[in-house]
Amino acid sequence: MITADTLWNDIKKIRAEAPLIHNITNYVVMNTSANALLSIGASPVMAHAIEEVKEMVGISRALVINIGTLSASWIASMLTAARAAKKLGIPIIVDPVGAGATRLRTETAHRLVQEAPPSVIRGNASEIRALFYAESGTKGVDSKHRTEEALEASTELSKRYQCTVSVSGEVDVIVQGEKIIRIFNGHSLMPRVTGLGCTASALTGAFAAVNSSAFLAAAHAMAVMGIAGEIAAEQSKGPGTLQMHFLDALHQLTELDIQKRLKIGK
Amino acid sequence: MITADTLWNDIKKIRAEAPLIHNITNYVVMNTSANALLSIGASPVMAHAIEEVKEMVGISRALVINIGTLSASWIASMLTAARAAKKLGIPIIVDPVGAGATRLRTETAHRLVQEAPPSVIRGNASEIRALFYAESGTKGVDSKHRTEEALEASTELSKRYQCTVSVSGEVDVIVQGEKIIRIFNGHSLMPRVTGLGCTASALTGAFAAVNSSAFLAAAHAMAVMGIAGEIAAEQSKGPGTLQMHFLDALHQLTELDIQKRLKIGK
Amino acid sequence: MITADTLWNDIKKIRAEAPLIHNITNYVVMNTSANALLSIGASPVMAHAIEEVKEMVGISRALVINIGTLSASWIASMLTAARAAKKLGIPIIVDPVGAGATRLRTETAHRLVQEAPPSVIRGNASEIRALFYAESGTKGVDSKHRTEEALEASTELSKRYQCTVSVSGEVDVIVQGEKIIRIFNGHSLMPRVTGLGCTASALTGAFAAVNSSAFLAAAHAMAVMGIAGEIAAEQSKGPGTLQMHFLDALHQLTELDIQKRLKIGK
Repeated sequence: MITADTLWNDIKKIRAEAPLIHNITNYVVMNTSANALLSIGASPVMAHAIEEVKEMVGISRALVINIGTLSASWIASMLTAARAAKKLGIPIIVDPVGAGATRLRTETAHRLVQEAPPSVIRGNASEIRALFYAESGTKGVDSKHRTEEALEASTELSKRYQCTVSVSGEVDVIVQGEKIIRIFNGHSLMPRVTGLGCTASALTGAFAAVNSSAFLAAAHAMAVMGIAGEIAAEQSKGPGTLQMHFLDALHQLTELDIQKRLKIGK
Repeated sequence: MITADTLWNDIKKIRAEAPLIHNITNYVVMNTSANALLSIGASPVMAHAIEEVKEMVGISRALVINIGTLSASWIASMLTAARAAKKLGIPIIVDPVGAGATRLRTETAHRLVQEAPPSVIRGNASEIRALFYAESGTKGVDSKHRTEEALEASTELSKRYQCTVSVSGEVDVIVQGEKIIRIFNGHSLMPRVTGLGCTASALTGAFAAVNSSAFLAAAHAMAVMGIAGEIAAEQSKGPGTLQMHFLDALHQLTELDIQKRLKIGK
Repeated sequence: MITADTLWNDIKKIRAEAPLIHNITNYVVMNTSANALLSIGASPVMAHAIEEVKEMVGISRALVINIGTLSASWIASMLTAARAAKKLGIPIIVDPVGAGATRLRTETAHRLVQEAPPSVIRGNASEIRALFYAESGTKGVDSKHRTEEALEASTELSKRYQCTVSVSGEVDVIVQGEKIIRIFNGHSLMPRVTGLGCTASALTGAFAAVNSSAFLAAAHAMAVMGIAGEIAAEQSKGPGTLQMHFLDALHQLTELDIQKRLKIGK
């Protein structure tokens, strides 16, 4: 189980080590993901050319793959990077954005988890269900399901690919085999900012870079998202101010904030 | 003619239904367009792969095509998506960003309106003139003309393609055949934020998703842009704060704001 | 040497003339670079299709090439645009983002400066060293060196390519042959915002558009970056607020701000 202590320790490590996180992510969130990684203390790099992804993986401490704006050449690069990371033992985070909305997304998500099983699959409930049941019901990139409805799918995917499954929603659920952590932090305004799920995946990469347990890393990332989101929401009157205060909150996060706010359960 | 009532009704519909809006847009504005759609209450998705655009159009309620950062493969996807939307009766918004600045942009804009006539063409005055007169005078993506100088072009384009033409500028002009709505809302700081024209196109998609009149939808979108821009500008000291407060204003917009501020004419 | 007067004169020119700046830049910073150019008073355009870059260069007053998210087709466009700019005598700024991190980046940076020597090479110390010593040590896109460690490389590159080399860091160093300007403005929070280096390159383009001395233009841009960063940091509690206030500061910059704050040396 995570605690305020385990979380704070990892944040201190990220700030001290500034691990390089290689992102192959979508166009919509590149700027905000990079800023979130910088705000927590990591060092982001974005690189997608097939000619360079292996080399970039080789100097990075985590690889975050996000399929939010796919095309054929990017898929090839994602697979190449993932195989390289696997060979080098570098943790991989896969965010199957929009799996279930189109065949291209569902199939690409499948290929990624099958050909180079990641440390963490991080998505919303509809995406996780699409990956397991081959459902086609995701509303674009938004979930039509609550996280609890993805519980069976998460457990089975976790067992099949020997990985952690991290499902974001009103309650975040992190699953590894039979183990579960639920995180009750967060704020209802957060889904009104585009790409905060993608930011969660990027931060999962930062925590996986400093913690060898993918399960704890995924939970730490979701807890930090929720806590920073709460702090930001208290100062915000809409999605515009929230997006800005969220980065400040990541940057300013203290041990006391975490001790006071962390709300977890099984 | 639009009124505070027709506008408010459509905003309520968008907030209640959260229509999925499929955007094939430029890299510069993907984040801000997605955030504007979320802030008004819609559900944005960005997808440009030729393998998935038909499917994504099929689950969406409007398609917004914006040619701000073109390349050959994106043009093919735009045309494929537009034809699919046409077949399904899904409203299309075309934003001919930079038409008149280069042949590629002018020609692509032409192909889009000819091969799958949209519900709304939404651009600045130079872009609309470039589409009609085959002028090459746009200064990059900025207009060199006032909206009134695009009046004839707008009327003729509207008749030729049986569509609405929505021209943004100091005064916004929305034209359908002989019908005209002028909107006097807005603020001089708005052109100092990149991509607010593109945001206008995205929001036009959201309004077209809930209103079967493309003419009213286009006018509603421009009115909301102007009103949210005014509210934001009152709290802003520059383009940075404006961009942020603009999203908050979209999110917080009330019936009273609209009643107090809406300034329209013929 | 630059003074508050030479800097203020160029800012006035940019605001009066709104020069069109053509950017072929990376996905992460397109939005923020465009906003910074608008905030200083210039007119940004982003265009990367090989079919249109020559034409776009032809109507622009500076070309800014940034290799932050490369791929083969973009490299071809960058070279085509750079050659066209060279032929037309339009100033070119090259930002070798991540040179030294992968061969693709180092080689592309080399090709750009060799095949169409720019007016200004603008990067961090590790990138400039990678260009000169063929070192491979850049940590993704972050520098592992202080600017002073890039002094020899800057001087030699400047002589070899008859260009200005502008190195950003805690102290900014601008070099042309034996001439040096050091700029002591800036704030420690700035590297926590993604892409402020890329913004510096974009603004260098704006200053090069109005000042025929690349050396002065590069120094003016770095001075404005540092001064606006200081003003923004005084109002900010983290990277989120800094990014926003930075744009406002560019927009609101006065002659007095510059007179009070400019800190330069040799």
